[in-house]
Amino acid sequence: RPTCHKEFDEATAILAGDALLALAFEVLATEVQPPETAAACCAAMAQASGRCQLVGGQADDMHPPQPGQFDLATGLEILEATHLRKTGALIRVSLQLGGMCAGADGGQLAALDRYGRCVGLAFQIADDLLDVTSNAHALGKRVGKDAAHGKLTFPGLLGIEPSRRRAAQLSDDACNALTPFGPAADGLTSLARFVTERNR
Amino acid sequence: RPTCHKEFDEATAILAGDALLALAFEVLATEVQPPETAAACCAAMAQASGRCQLVGGQADDMHPPQPGQFDLATGLEILEATHLRKTGALIRVSLQLGGMCAGADGGQLAALDRYGRCVGLAFQIADDLLDVTSNAHALGKRVGKDAAHGKLTFPGLLGIEPSRRRAAQLSDDACNALTPFGPAADGLTSLARFVTERNR
Repeated sequence: RPTCHKEFDEATAILAGDALLALAFEVLATEVQPPETAAACCAAMAQASGRCQLVGGQADDMHPPQPGQFDLATGLEILEATHLRKTGALIRVSLQLGGMCAGADGGQLAALDRYGRCVGLAFQIADDLLDVTSNAHALGKRVGKDAAHGKLTFPGLLGIEPSRRRAAQLSDDACNALTPFGPAADGLTSLARFVTERNR
Repeated sequence: RPTCHKEFDEATAILAGDALLALAFEVLATEVQPPETAAACCAAMAQASGRCQLVGGQADDMHPPQPGQFDLATGLEILEATHLRKTGALIRVSLQLGGMCAGADGGQLAALDRYGRCVGLAFQIADDLLDVTSNAHALGKRVGKDAAHGKLTFPGLLGIEPSRRRAAQLSDDACNALTPFGPAADGLTSLARFVTERNR
Protein backbone atom coordinates (compact mmCIF):
# COMPACT_ATOMS: atom_id res chain seq x y z
CA ARG A 1 0.00 0.00 0.00
CA PRO A 2 1.23 3.51 -0.69
CA THR A 3 2.75 5.39 2.24
CA CYS A 4 0.49 7.85 4.07
CA HIS A 5 1.98 10.99 2.53
CA LYS A 6 1.45 9.55 -0.98
CA GLU A 7 -2.12 8.35 -0.29
CA PHE A 8 -3.10 11.65 1.33
CA ASP A 9 -0.58 14.49 1.65
CA GLU A 10 2.38 15.45 3.79
CA ALA A 11 0.42 17.59 6.27
CA THR A 12 -2.03 14.75 6.89
CA ALA A 13 0.81 12.24 7.31
CA ILE A 14 2.54 14.49 9.86
CA LEU A 15 -0.72 14.94 11.78
CA ALA A 16 -1.39 11.20 11.72
CA GLY A 17 2.06 10.65 13.22
CA ASP A 18 1.39 13.24 15.92
CA ALA A 19 -1.97 11.61 16.70
CA LEU A 20 -0.44 8.13 16.97
CA LEU A 21 2.39 9.39 19.20
CA ALA A 22 -0.13 11.07 21.54
CA LEU A 23 -2.20 7.86 21.52
CA ALA A 24 0.89 5.88 22.57
CA PHE A 25 1.29 8.13 25.63
CA GLU A 26 -2.44 7.95 26.35
CA VAL A 27 -2.40 4.13 26.32
CA LEU A 28 0.71 4.00 28.53
CA ALA A 29 -0.64 6.55 31.00
CA THR A 30 -4.15 5.08 31.29
CA GLU A 31 -3.72 1.31 30.77
CA VAL A 32 -0.46 0.40 32.51
CA GLN A 33 -0.56 -0.58 36.18
CA PRO A 34 0.75 0.19 38.77
CA PRO A 35 1.10 4.00 38.31
CA GLU A 36 4.87 3.76 39.02
CA THR A 37 5.23 1.59 35.92
CA ALA A 38 2.91 3.84 33.88
CA ALA A 39 5.05 6.87 34.73
CA ALA A 40 8.28 4.96 33.98
CA CYS A 41 6.83 3.84 30.61
CA CYS A 42 5.82 7.41 29.71
CA ALA A 43 9.34 8.60 30.63
CA ALA A 44 10.99 5.92 28.46
CA MET A 45 8.67 6.70 25.54
CA ALA A 46 9.32 10.46 25.90
CA GLN A 47 13.09 9.95 25.93
CA ALA A 48 12.98 7.64 22.89
CA SER A 49 10.81 10.00 20.86
CA GLY A 50 12.50 13.22 21.97
CA ARG A 51 15.40 15.49 21.15
CA CYS A 52 18.15 13.02 22.10
CA GLN A 53 16.75 10.07 20.13
CA LEU A 54 14.07 10.07 17.39
CA VAL A 55 13.95 13.83 16.85
CA GLY A 56 17.74 14.15 17.15
CA GLY A 57 18.29 11.35 14.63
CA GLN A 58 15.89 12.92 12.17
CA ALA A 59 17.69 16.26 12.60
CA ASP A 60 21.03 14.47 11.87
CA ASP A 61 19.44 13.04 8.77
CA MET A 62 18.43 16.49 7.55
CA HIS A 63 22.03 17.70 7.73
CA PRO A 64 24.06 14.71 6.52
CA PRO A 65 27.81 14.94 6.04
CA GLN A 66 28.80 15.52 2.43
CA PRO A 67 30.55 12.73 0.46
CA GLY A 68 34.32 13.13 0.66
CA GLN A 69 34.12 14.51 4.21
CA PHE A 70 34.67 11.09 5.83
CA ASP A 71 36.44 7.75 5.38
CA LEU A 72 34.60 4.42 5.41
CA ALA A 73 34.89 3.87 9.18
CA THR A 74 33.66 7.36 10.00
CA GLY A 75 30.85 7.06 7.45
CA LEU A 76 29.64 3.82 9.04
CA GLU A 77 29.86 5.36 12.49
CA ILE A 78 27.78 8.37 11.45
CA LEU A 79 25.26 6.18 9.65
CA GLU A 80 24.83 3.77 12.57
CA ALA A 81 24.57 6.60 15.10
CA THR A 82 21.90 8.33 13.00
CA HIS A 83 19.82 5.20 12.52
CA LEU A 84 20.17 4.03 16.12
CA ARG A 85 18.50 7.31 17.04
CA LYS A 86 16.13 7.81 14.11
CA THR A 87 14.59 4.35 13.68
CA GLY A 88 16.31 2.31 16.38
CA ALA A 89 15.09 4.24 19.41
CA LEU A 90 11.38 3.51 18.88
CA ILE A 91 12.04 -0.18 18.15
CA ARG A 92 14.15 -0.43 21.31
CA VAL A 93 11.68 1.41 23.52
CA SER A 94 8.78 -0.73 22.30
CA LEU A 95 10.71 -3.76 23.56
CA GLN A 96 11.54 -2.04 26.85
CA LEU A 97 7.89 -1.07 27.35
CA GLY A 98 6.75 -4.65 26.81
CA GLY A 99 9.39 -5.84 29.25
CA MET A 100 8.50 -3.23 31.86
CA CYS A 101 4.78 -4.06 31.65
CA ALA A 102 5.58 -7.77 32.01
CA GLY A 103 7.77 -7.14 35.07
CA ALA A 104 11.06 -8.11 33.38
CA ASP A 105 14.20 -7.87 35.53
CA GLY A 106 17.32 -5.82 34.66
CA GLY A 107 19.03 -8.70 32.84
CA GLN A 108 15.96 -9.40 30.72
CA LEU A 109 15.55 -5.71 29.86
CA ALA A 110 19.23 -5.59 28.80
CA ALA A 111 18.74 -8.69 26.58
CA LEU A 112 15.67 -7.12 24.96
CA ASP A 113 17.69 -3.96 24.37
CA ARG A 114 20.51 -5.89 22.64
CA TYR A 115 17.90 -7.55 20.45
CA GLY A 116 16.25 -4.20 19.65
CA ARG A 117 19.53 -2.51 18.80
CA CYS A 118 20.47 -5.26 16.34
CA VAL A 119 17.00 -5.52 14.78
CA GLY A 120 16.81 -1.74 14.41
CA LEU A 121 20.08 -1.60 12.46
CA ALA A 122 19.20 -4.71 10.43
CA PHE A 123 15.88 -3.10 9.54
CA GLN A 124 17.62 0.04 8.33
CA ILE A 125 20.19 -1.85 6.24
CA ALA A 126 17.34 -3.89 4.70
CA ASP A 127 15.48 -0.64 4.01
CA ASP A 128 18.53 0.85 2.27
CA LEU A 129 18.95 -2.38 0.26
CA LEU A 130 15.29 -2.37 -0.83
CA ASP A 131 15.69 1.19 -2.09
CA VAL A 132 18.45 -0.14 -4.40
CA THR A 133 17.09 -3.56 -5.31
CA SER A 134 13.28 -3.50 -5.12
CA ASN A 135 10.72 -1.88 -7.40
CA ALA A 136 8.24 0.84 -6.52
CA HIS A 137 5.20 -1.44 -6.92
CA ALA A 138 6.42 -3.99 -4.37
CA LEU A 139 7.74 -1.37 -1.95
CA GLY A 140 4.81 1.07 -2.07
CA LYS A 141 7.19 4.02 -2.31
CA ARG A 142 9.63 5.42 -4.81
CA VAL A 143 12.92 3.50 -5.14
CA GLY A 144 16.41 4.74 -6.01
CA LYS A 145 15.73 8.03 -4.24
CA ASP A 146 18.53 7.62 -1.68
CA ALA A 147 21.21 7.56 -4.40
CA ALA A 148 19.42 10.34 -6.31
CA HIS A 149 19.63 12.50 -3.16
CA GLY A 150 23.30 11.59 -2.57
CA LYS A 151 22.23 10.08 0.74
CA LEU A 152 24.62 8.16 2.98
CA THR A 153 23.44 4.52 2.94
CA PHE A 154 24.82 1.11 3.88
CA PRO A 155 24.92 -0.25 0.30
CA GLY A 156 26.39 3.06 -0.86
CA LEU A 157 29.22 2.73 1.68
CA LEU A 158 29.75 -1.05 1.77
CA GLY A 159 28.27 -2.37 -1.47
CA ILE A 160 25.20 -4.60 -1.80
CA GLU A 161 26.54 -8.03 -0.83
CA PRO A 162 28.54 -6.85 2.22
CA SER A 163 25.41 -4.95 3.35
CA ARG A 164 23.35 -8.13 3.04
CA ARG A 165 25.91 -10.05 5.11
CA ARG A 166 25.94 -7.33 7.73
CA ALA A 167 22.13 -7.36 8.00
CA ALA A 168 22.12 -11.17 8.27
CA GLN A 169 24.80 -11.03 11.00
CA LEU A 170 22.79 -8.45 12.95
CA SER A 171 19.70 -10.63 12.61
CA ASP A 172 21.72 -13.57 14.05
CA ASP A 173 23.02 -11.38 16.89
CA ALA A 174 19.45 -10.29 17.63
CA CYS A 175 18.26 -13.90 17.86
CA ASN A 176 21.22 -14.88 20.05
CA ALA A 177 20.34 -12.13 22.52
CA LEU A 178 16.99 -13.88 23.04
CA THR A 179 18.37 -17.28 24.19
CA PRO A 180 17.66 -16.58 27.91
CA PHE A 181 13.95 -16.40 27.06
CA GLY A 182 13.77 -19.82 25.35
CA PRO A 183 10.73 -20.60 23.17
CA ALA A 184 8.78 -17.69 24.73
CA ALA A 185 10.76 -15.44 22.35
CA ASP A 186 9.91 -17.34 19.13
CA GLY A 187 7.76 -14.45 17.90
CA LEU A 188 10.65 -12.00 18.26
CA THR A 189 13.01 -14.47 16.53
CA SER A 190 10.66 -14.67 13.54
CA LEU A 191 10.46 -10.88 13.47
CA ALA A 192 14.26 -10.57 13.35
CA ARG A 193 14.34 -13.00 10.41
CA PHE A 194 11.48 -11.25 8.63
CA VAL A 195 13.17 -7.85 8.91
CA THR A 196 16.11 -8.94 6.76
CA GLU A 197 14.22 -11.34 4.48
CA ARG A 198 11.28 -9.09 3.56
CA ASN A 199 11.15 -7.94 -0.06
CA ARG A 200 8.99 -4.88 0.46
CA ARG B 1 11.19 37.70 16.51
CA PRO B 2 10.41 35.72 13.38
CA THR B 3 8.52 32.45 13.87
CA CYS B 4 10.59 29.25 13.86
CA HIS B 5 9.65 28.16 10.34
CA LYS B 6 10.70 31.58 8.99
CA GLU B 7 13.96 31.72 10.95
CA PHE B 8 14.91 28.14 9.98
CA ASP B 9 12.59 26.04 7.79
CA GLU B 10 9.35 24.10 8.07
CA ALA B 11 10.99 20.70 8.69
CA THR B 12 13.06 22.15 11.54
CA ALA B 13 10.02 23.87 13.04
CA ILE B 14 8.01 20.62 12.95
CA LEU B 15 10.88 18.75 14.59
CA ALA B 16 11.27 21.44 17.25
CA GLY B 17 7.57 21.05 18.04
CA ASP B 18 7.91 17.27 18.28
CA ALA B 19 10.95 17.66 20.56
CA LEU B 20 9.12 20.09 22.87
CA LEU B 21 6.05 17.86 23.04
CA ALA B 22 8.20 14.85 23.98
CA LEU B 23 9.98 17.01 26.57
CA ALA B 24 6.61 17.94 28.09
CA PHE B 25 5.83 14.24 28.60
CA GLU B 26 9.34 13.61 29.93
CA VAL B 27 9.01 16.37 32.53
CA LEU B 28 5.55 15.20 33.61
CA ALA B 29 6.60 11.54 33.82
CA THR B 30 9.89 12.14 35.69
CA GLU B 31 9.28 15.24 37.85
CA VAL B 32 5.68 14.95 39.08
CA GLN B 33 5.02 13.11 42.34
CA PRO B 34 3.31 10.87 43.39
CA PRO B 35 3.35 8.48 40.37
CA GLU B 36 -0.49 8.44 40.33
CA THR B 37 -0.43 12.18 39.60
CA ALA B 38 2.40 11.79 37.04
CA ALA B 39 0.36 9.18 35.15
CA ALA B 40 -2.81 11.33 35.34
CA CYS B 41 -0.85 14.35 34.03
CA CYS B 42 0.57 12.31 31.12
CA ALA B 43 -2.95 11.08 30.30
CA ALA B 44 -4.36 14.63 30.33
CA MET B 45 -1.49 15.90 28.16
CA ALA B 46 -1.91 13.01 25.70
CA GLN B 47 -5.64 13.64 25.38
CA ALA B 48 -5.15 17.39 24.86
CA SER B 49 -2.47 16.92 22.19
CA GLY B 50 -4.09 13.96 20.44
CA ARG B 51 -6.60 13.11 17.76
CA CYS B 52 -9.66 14.46 19.62
CA GLN B 53 -8.15 17.82 20.55
CA LEU B 54 -5.00 19.51 19.12
CA VAL B 55 -4.51 17.17 16.16
CA GLY B 56 -8.26 17.02 15.46
CA GLY B 57 -8.53 20.82 15.53
CA GLN B 58 -5.59 21.18 13.16
CA ALA B 59 -7.20 18.62 10.83
CA ASP B 60 -10.46 20.66 10.94
CA ASP B 61 -8.44 23.72 10.04
CA MET B 62 -6.96 22.00 6.98
CA HIS B 63 -10.43 21.29 5.62
CA PRO B 64 -12.40 24.44 6.46
CA PRO B 65 -15.97 24.92 5.26
CA GLN B 66 -16.21 27.08 2.15
CA PRO B 67 -17.75 30.57 2.39
CA GLY B 68 -21.46 30.44 1.55
CA GLN B 69 -21.84 26.98 3.09
CA PHE B 70 -22.94 28.34 6.48
CA ASP B 71 -24.86 31.19 8.14
CA LEU B 72 -23.29 33.44 10.81
CA ALA B 73 -24.33 31.27 13.78
CA THR B 74 -23.02 28.09 12.17
CA GLY B 75 -19.81 29.84 11.10
CA LEU B 76 -19.17 30.99 14.68
CA GLU B 77 -19.91 27.52 16.00
CA ILE B 78 -17.45 25.91 13.56
CA LEU B 79 -14.80 28.53 14.30
CA GLU B 80 -15.12 28.22 18.09
CA ALA B 81 -15.12 24.42 17.94
CA THR B 82 -11.98 24.41 15.78
CA HIS B 83 -10.10 26.85 17.99
CA LEU B 84 -11.21 25.24 21.24
CA ARG B 85 -9.50 22.10 19.95
CA LYS B 86 -6.60 23.57 17.99
CA THR B 87 -5.26 26.24 20.35
CA GLY B 88 -7.60 25.99 23.35
CA ALA B 89 -6.82 22.40 24.37
CA LEU B 90 -3.15 23.01 25.19
CA ILE B 91 -3.93 26.21 27.10
CA ARG B 92 -6.61 24.39 29.11
CA VAL B 93 -4.47 21.35 29.84
CA SER B 94 -1.57 23.52 30.98
CA LEU B 95 -3.90 24.97 33.61
CA GLN B 96 -5.21 21.54 34.57
CA LEU B 97 -1.64 20.21 34.93
CA GLY B 98 -0.71 23.08 37.22
CA GLY B 99 -3.82 22.47 39.28
CA MET B 100 -3.25 18.72 39.47
CA CYS B 101 0.38 19.18 40.59
CA ALA B 102 -0.74 21.65 43.25
CA GLY B 103 -3.43 19.27 44.56
CA ALA B 104 -6.41 21.40 43.43
CA ASP B 105 -9.87 19.99 44.19
CA GLY B 106 -12.59 19.36 41.58
CA GLY B 107 -14.15 22.82 41.96
CA GLN B 108 -10.79 24.53 41.54
CA LEU B 109 -9.96 22.45 38.46
CA ALA B 110 -13.36 23.37 36.96
CA ALA B 111 -12.69 27.08 37.64
CA LEU B 112 -9.27 26.83 35.97
CA ASP B 113 -10.91 25.13 33.00
CA ARG B 114 -13.49 27.91 32.60
CA TYR B 115 -10.64 30.42 32.71
CA GLY B 116 -8.63 28.43 30.14
CA ARG B 117 -11.56 28.04 27.77
CA CYS B 118 -12.23 31.81 27.78
CA VAL B 119 -8.56 32.79 27.51
CA GLY B 120 -8.02 30.32 24.66
CA LEU B 121 -10.83 31.82 22.59
CA ALA B 122 -9.85 35.38 23.48
CA PHE B 123 -6.29 34.58 22.38
CA GLN B 124 -7.52 33.30 19.02
CA ILE B 125 -9.81 36.28 18.39
CA ALA B 126 -6.89 38.60 19.24
CA ASP B 127 -4.69 36.59 16.86
CA ASP B 128 -7.24 36.97 14.06
CA LEU B 129 -7.51 40.69 14.80
CA LEU B 130 -3.73 41.16 14.72
CA ASP B 131 -3.63 39.52 11.29
CA VAL B 132 -6.00 42.26 10.08
CA THR B 133 -4.76 45.26 12.07
CA SER B 134 -1.05 44.78 12.87
CA ASN B 135 2.00 44.98 10.63
CA ALA B 136 4.49 42.24 9.84
CA HIS B 137 7.35 43.95 11.69
CA ALA B 138 5.48 44.12 15.01
CA LEU B 139 3.95 40.66 14.65
CA GLY B 140 7.03 38.75 13.43
CA LYS B 141 4.98 36.98 10.77
CA ARG B 142 3.14 37.88 7.59
CA VAL B 143 -0.17 39.72 8.08
CA GLY B 144 -3.32 39.72 5.96
CA LYS B 145 -2.75 36.08 5.05
CA ASP B 146 -6.01 34.84 6.61
CA ALA B 147 -8.13 36.95 4.25
CA ALA B 148 -5.80 36.14 1.33
CA HIS B 149 -6.45 32.42 1.98
CA GLY B 150 -10.22 32.94 2.36
CA LYS B 151 -9.89 31.65 5.93
CA LEU B 152 -12.80 31.66 8.37
CA THR B 153 -11.90 34.22 11.08
CA PHE B 154 -13.69 36.13 13.84
CA PRO B 155 -13.21 39.60 12.26
CA GLY B 156 -14.19 38.11 8.88
CA LEU B 157 -17.46 36.82 10.37
CA LEU B 158 -18.29 39.51 12.94
CA GLY B 159 -16.33 42.58 11.86
CA ILE B 160 -13.43 44.18 13.74
CA GLU B 161 -15.20 46.09 16.54
CA PRO B 162 -17.62 43.28 17.49
CA SER B 163 -14.63 40.91 17.54
CA ARG B 164 -12.79 43.26 19.91
CA ARG B 165 -15.82 43.39 22.20
CA ARG B 166 -16.14 39.61 22.14
CA ALA B 167 -12.45 39.18 23.05
CA ALA B 168 -12.78 41.73 25.90
CA GLN B 169 -15.90 39.95 27.21
CA LEU B 170 -14.09 36.59 27.16
CA SER B 171 -11.18 38.17 29.00
CA ASP B 172 -13.63 39.46 31.66
CA ASP B 173 -15.27 36.02 31.90
CA ALA B 174 -11.84 34.46 32.33
CA CYS B 175 -10.98 36.81 35.20
CA ASN B 176 -14.37 36.23 36.86
CA ALA B 177 -13.76 32.49 36.85
CA LEU B 178 -10.71 33.13 39.05
CA THR B 179 -12.52 34.90 41.93
CA PRO B 180 -12.48 31.77 44.20
CA PHE B 181 -8.65 31.95 44.18
CA GLY B 182 -8.42 35.57 45.40
CA PRO B 183 -5.09 37.42 44.95
CA ALA B 184 -3.26 34.09 44.38
CA ALA B 185 -4.58 34.25 40.81
CA ASP B 186 -3.30 37.77 40.02
CA GLY B 187 -0.75 36.37 37.56
CA LEU B 188 -3.46 34.60 35.58
CA THR B 189 -5.62 37.73 35.64
CA SER B 190 -2.78 39.76 34.12
CA LEU B 191 -2.28 37.06 31.50
CA ALA B 192 -5.96 37.21 30.48
CA ARG B 193 -5.69 40.99 30.10
CA PHE B 194 -2.42 40.74 28.17
CA VAL B 195 -3.87 38.24 25.71
CA THR B 196 -6.44 40.73 24.41
CA GLU B 197 -4.35 43.88 24.84
CA ARG B 198 -1.14 42.67 23.17
CA ASN B 199 -0.28 44.32 19.87
CA ARG B 200 1.98 41.60 18.52
